[in-house]
Amino acid sequence: MAEVKSDIEIARAANKKPILEIGAKLGIPPEDLLPYGHDKAKIGAEFISRQKDGKDGRLILVTAINPTPAGEGKTTTTVGLGDGLNRIGKKAIVCIREASLGPCFGVKGGAAGGGYAQVVPMEDINLHFTGDFHAITSAHNLLSALIDNHIYWGNEQNIDIRRIAWRRVMDMNDRALRHIVGPLGGVANGYPRETGFDITVASEVMAILCLATDLKDLETRLGNIIIAYRRDRTPVFARDIKADGAMTVLLKDAMQPNLVQTLENNPAFVHGGPFANIAHGCNSVVATTTALKLADYVVTEAGFGADLGAEKFFDIKCRKAGLKPDVAVVVATARAMKMNGGVKKEDLGQENVDAVRKGCANLGRHVQNVKKFGVPVVVAINHFTLDTQAEIEAIKSFVATLGAEAILCRHWAEGSAGIEDLARKVVQLAENGRSQFSPLYPDDMSLFHKIETIAKDIYHAGEVIADKSVRDQLHAWEAQGYRHLPICMAKTQYSFSTDPNLRGAPTGHTVPIREVRLSAGAGFIVVITGEIMTMPGLPRAPSSEKIFLNDEGYIEGLF
Amino acid sequence: MAEVKSDIEIARAANKKPILEIGAKLGIPPEDLLPYGHDKAKIGAEFISRQKDGKDGRLILVTAINPTPAGEGKTTTTVGLGDGLNRIGKKAIVCIREASLGPCFGVKGGAAGGGYAQVVPMEDINLHFTGDFHAITSAHNLLSALIDNHIYWGNEQNIDIRRIAWRRVMDMNDRALRHIVGPLGGVANGYPRETGFDITVASEVMAILCLATDLKDLETRLGNIIIAYRRDRTPVFARDIKADGAMTVLLKDAMQPNLVQTLENNPAFVHGGPFANIAHGCNSVVATTTALKLADYVVTEAGFGADLGAEKFFDIKCRKAGLKPDVAVVVATARAMKMNGGVKKEDLGQENVDAVRKGCANLGRHVQNVKKFGVPVVVAINHFTLDTQAEIEAIKSFVATLGAEAILCRHWAEGSAGIEDLARKVVQLAENGRSQFSPLYPDDMSLFHKIETIAKDIYHAGEVIADKSVRDQLHAWEAQGYRHLPICMAKTQYSFSTDPNLRGAPTGHTVPIREVRLSAGAGFIVVITGEIMTMPGLPRAPSSEKIFLNDEGYIEGLF
Repeated sequence: MAEVKSDIEIARAANKKPILEIGAKLGIPPEDLLPYGHDKAKIGAEFISRQKDGKDGRLILVTAINPTPAGEGKTTTTVGLGDGLNRIGKKAIVCIREASLGPCFGVKGGAAGGGYAQVVPMEDINLHFTGDFHAITSAHNLLSALIDNHIYWGNEQNIDIRRIAWRRVMDMNDRALRHIVGPLGGVANGYPRETGFDITVASEVMAILCLATDLKDLETRLGNIIIAYRRDRTPVFARDIKADGAMTVLLKDAMQPNLVQTLENNPAFVHGGPFANIAHGCNSVVATTTALKLADYVVTEAGFGADLGAEKFFDIKCRKAGLKPDVAVVVATARAMKMNGGVKKEDLGQENVDAVRKGCANLGRHVQNVKKFGVPVVVAINHFTLDTQAEIEAIKSFVATLGAEAILCRHWAEGSAGIEDLARKVVQLAENGRSQFSPLYPDDMSLFHKIETIAKDIYHAGEVIADKSVRDQLHAWEAQGYRHLPICMAKTQYSFSTDPNLRGAPTGHTVPIREVRLSAGAGFIVVITGEIMTMPGLPRAPSSEKIFLNDEGYIEGLF
Repeated sequence: MAEVKSDIEIARAANKKPILEIGAKLGIPPEDLLPYGHDKAKIGAEFISRQKDGKDGRLILVTAINPTPAGEGKTTTTVGLGDGLNRIGKKAIVCIREASLGPCFGVKGGAAGGGYAQVVPMEDINLHFTGDFHAITSAHNLLSALIDNHIYWGNEQNIDIRRIAWRRVMDMNDRALRHIVGPLGGVANGYPRETGFDITVASEVMAILCLATDLKDLETRLGNIIIAYRRDRTPVFARDIKADGAMTVLLKDAMQPNLVQTLENNPAFVHGGPFANIAHGCNSVVATTTALKLADYVVTEAGFGADLGAEKFFDIKCRKAGLKPDVAVVVATARAMKMNGGVKKEDLGQENVDAVRKGCANLGRHVQNVKKFGVPVVVAINHFTLDTQAEIEAIKSFVATLGAEAILCRHWAEGSAGIEDLARKVVQLAENGRSQFSPLYPDDMSLFHKIETIAKDIYHAGEVIADKSVRDQLHAWEAQGYRHLPICMAKTQYSFSTDPNLRGAPTGHTVPIREVRLSAGAGFIVVITGEIMTMPGLPRAPSSEKIFLNDEGYIEGLF
C-alpha cells in the first residue's frame, strides 16, 4: 500500500495559484479583490452589488447522517464535489464555513477538508485567516462594554441588571470564563452581577453577519439585538444605546466573502461560521448569493447531521435569503453505518455487513426527511481505506429501496478523479429541474406549532413537552411581533432524539424544551432541548502542546 | 483664513499609491510583500533576514515634553519629519506604533498623525489594521486558558492558585472586566479565584513581540513568561505548561512589520504598540532594525514625554537591540509651554509670553536629560494657528541658552514643505557624527540603584522610598538571575514627579514605589509608582455613539 500523507503534508505541497488568477477565473477584476497575502482575498462590496441582476447558478447542499466518532467527511465531500464538478466541465464554487480558533488548540482537527479534497492555505484558514472572527469578537464585546458603561453612567434606559441578555465572547476554548461575577473592585468599576463568556461562533453577531444581505441590513439587525430587559419586561435593543453604528464599522470588512482555492485550484468561498446548535450553522448568505451569480454550480454544506443542519439550512437560510436548492447530497460512510448499527469504535476495522444494514436506518431517515423539502437527494459514500465491497453494496442496495442512489466517492484519496460519478449524478438531478423546494412550515404558524412540526416530521418524536413558562414566553414574543420567525433547534447532533446515545432512527421519543431564547437580530427563536455548551473546554493534553513552528518556519501539529 | 479640513477629510482625499509601489521604493520585491488590501502590506520574514549584513541608516528619535491637554503632536511631527527628510532628498522611513482599538470608541483621537502629516489608510490603522493586536490578544488568552486548564486537570506543576500572575486581555475599554471572580458554576468549570482583564496593549506578549529580534527569540521570550508561583515561591514559566510553541504560531504573521504610506507617499512602518507605563512604549525592534537597513534615515517615536518615553527607548529598546540613535527631536508647543507655565486650557487662546517662558523649564529639563544619553538634541516647535510670534521667539531664545536650537515646524498645515528646516538641522546633527550614545546605567548595577539613578538623574527626585517587601523582592530577583535587567518605570506621564498636577521642572520630590513586577519574557522590571490603569473605561458619551458608515460606505465619526 502506498504511503499515506497527512493532510498538512498534502496542503503544504499544494501548487497554489496566485489568488488574483483564481479571481480572474470568476471574472473578478484585480481591483475588486482585496488580497490578504498572495493566496487569500476578500471580494469587494461594489463588485458584489454590481452582480445583483445576474442569473443564478444551481445550489447544491451537502449534508450528512448524524455524526459519529467514526467521522463522515462532510467538508471533505463538499470540497471534493466542487472539484469534481469543475473536472466534468462545470464552473463550480465551493462555499464553506470559516474555522473557529478555539477548537484548534483543543482536540478538533481542521475545518478545511482532508486528504486530496482540501481548501488552502489550510494553516491560515484554521488560524486568524482574514480576521473575520476577530472582528466579530470585537463588535460583540464593544456592545458588552457599552451595556456596562451605560449602566455605570446612570442607566438612562433603566436596564434591569438582573436581566441582561448579552454576555461577552472569546474565540478560545476557556471553560474558566463560562460563569464569572463582576465587575468587582468598587465604585469605579460598576455594578457586580453574574455573567460570562461564550465562544465567538456562538455570538448572535456571527449569526447576524451570516444572514445579513448587505451592510445596511447588517446595521439594522445589529440594532435589533435585545441586550436586556427593563423591570417592566420591555426589551432594550442595541440601538437604544447607540451601539449599532460602531459595530457595523467594526464588521465592514468582515462582511466581504473570502476567496481561497482548493488543492486543484478551483475557487472556494470560506465565510462565516455560526454554531449549528444555538445558531443556524451555515456559511454566509452574502458568500452563497455572490457565488451563485458567478458559477454554474455552488456546493455548500450545513453543520451537523441533516436533522439539524439541513433543516436549518432550508428553514432559516434558504427561507430568509430566498434560495432555491436544486439537489441535496447526504454523506454517509460504512464506518458510521456500522456505529449506528451498534459496533464500537475499536471494532470498526472488522467487516460487519449486518451492522451496516442495521445502521442504514439512520441514513434512510435523513434521506426521507430531505425529500420532505422537495429537494432531490443523492447519497455520497465517502470511502475509507478499510471499507469492504460487501459493506458498500449493502448501503447501495438500501438506498436503492428508497428510490435514490448511493455513489461511492474516493475524493479523499484521489481528488476530483475519485468523485466524477457523484458530480455527474448531481448535474443530472439538477438539470432535470425536479427540485420543488419549500420550507417545512409556513411563516405564520404559531411558534410552538413550528417546534412540534420539526420534532414530529424530522425527529419522528411522539411529543414536545414544555413548562408553562416556556409556552408563555413564546406567546409573549408572538404578541410582540415575532410570530413570523423561524425556529432554530438546539439539540444534540448525535441522535434524532434528545438523547445522544440513541443512534439509528428512533421514533415516538419525547422532546423536552428546557429554554427558549429570542435572537431578534439574527431573526430566529432558539429552542434549547438539553445541555448546550456555548463555551468549550480544553482536554487534559490539549493539542496546543504539540503545535510549534519548525526550523523551516512551517507550522507543525495543527492537525 | 482658509477652511480647515478635518484629519479624516484630508486622509480620505489622499492620493494613495499601490503599496507594492511604496515597497518598490525601498527595494522590496513584490513577492516579499504580503498585501492586506491594496494599501497595506507585511514585509516577509525571508526578505528581512536577507538584509542582516546591510549597512544601517541614521536613527532619529522623536520625543516630547510632558504631555498636556493642549496636545503636542509627537506622531504628527514624526510623520512630518519623515516627509521632510524625503523632501530634501534623503531616503527616510517613519516607524510608529499601531493604534489600540479600545480607545477609538472612547475619547482618544487616532494614532496616525494629523493634518497634512498623517499615515494612511487611517481608518484601517485605527481599527483592525493587519490583525496584529488580535493575534496578541489570542496568544495571551491562549496562555490564560492553558493555565486554568492545567489546574483543572490536576495541576501537575503545583501552581498556587492564589499566586497566578497572568490575567486575560481584551482590546476594548471595558472597566467591568478589571476585577472579576471566576470560574464559578461548579466542578465542570474549575477553581474560583480573583482575576481580571487588561487592555491588549498592556499585555507582556505585546512588549515581547516588540522586543523580539526574530521568531526563535520570540518563542524563547514567550517561554520565559512567569505565569504563577508555587507554594514554595518558585516561578512557573509558560514553557512549563508547553504554551510557547502554539503562542508563537499565533504570532507568526504579527511579527512581520506593516508597511503603509504617508500622505506624501513616503514609506511608514506601523508595528507594535506596547503601553508606555508598564511597558516600554516603542514600536517593534524588528520594524526599526529592518527600516535601518532600507533607508538613510529612520524617524521613530517613543510614548509620553522624554522622562518616560525617551528614557525607556534608550535604556530598554536601544540597549537590548544594540541601536545607536543619532539625533533626538524634542517636540514642544507654545500652548503646552503656557500650560506648564500655569495657564488654564480655556485661556490658551490669549498670548502670554511670560507663561511660555515659565513653562520652558519643563522643556529645558527634557533637553538636558536627553543629552545625558550622549545624543544631540533639537527642539521642534509644532506650530498651532493661534501661536504668536513673541511666544515662538521666547521658546527659541530659551532653547538657545541650552546650547541647542528650536525650529518652528508647520507640517500640520503644510506637510513636508513646513518642516524642511527641521529636516536640514537633523541631517546636519546626524552627519556631524557627534552622537555618543550610551544608556543611563550599566547592566550590572543593582536593581534598586538603577531605579534611584533614573529617579535622580532624569526626574530630579530627592529620594526613592520603598517598603522592605519591595526591596526584598528586588533582591530575590537578583538572586534568581534577573539583576542584569533594565528598569521600566510606570509613572504618571504628566509630571517629572509622581504627582500629575506638578508641572514644570520640580526637584527634590520623593518617588514612592508601590509595587514591582517582573516581566521575565519581555526582559525588564516594572516599577510602579502610583495608580496605573491597565484597563481604561469609556466616558459617559463614548465616541462610538457617533461612529457609523455613511451612505457612501465611508466611516464617519472615527475622529
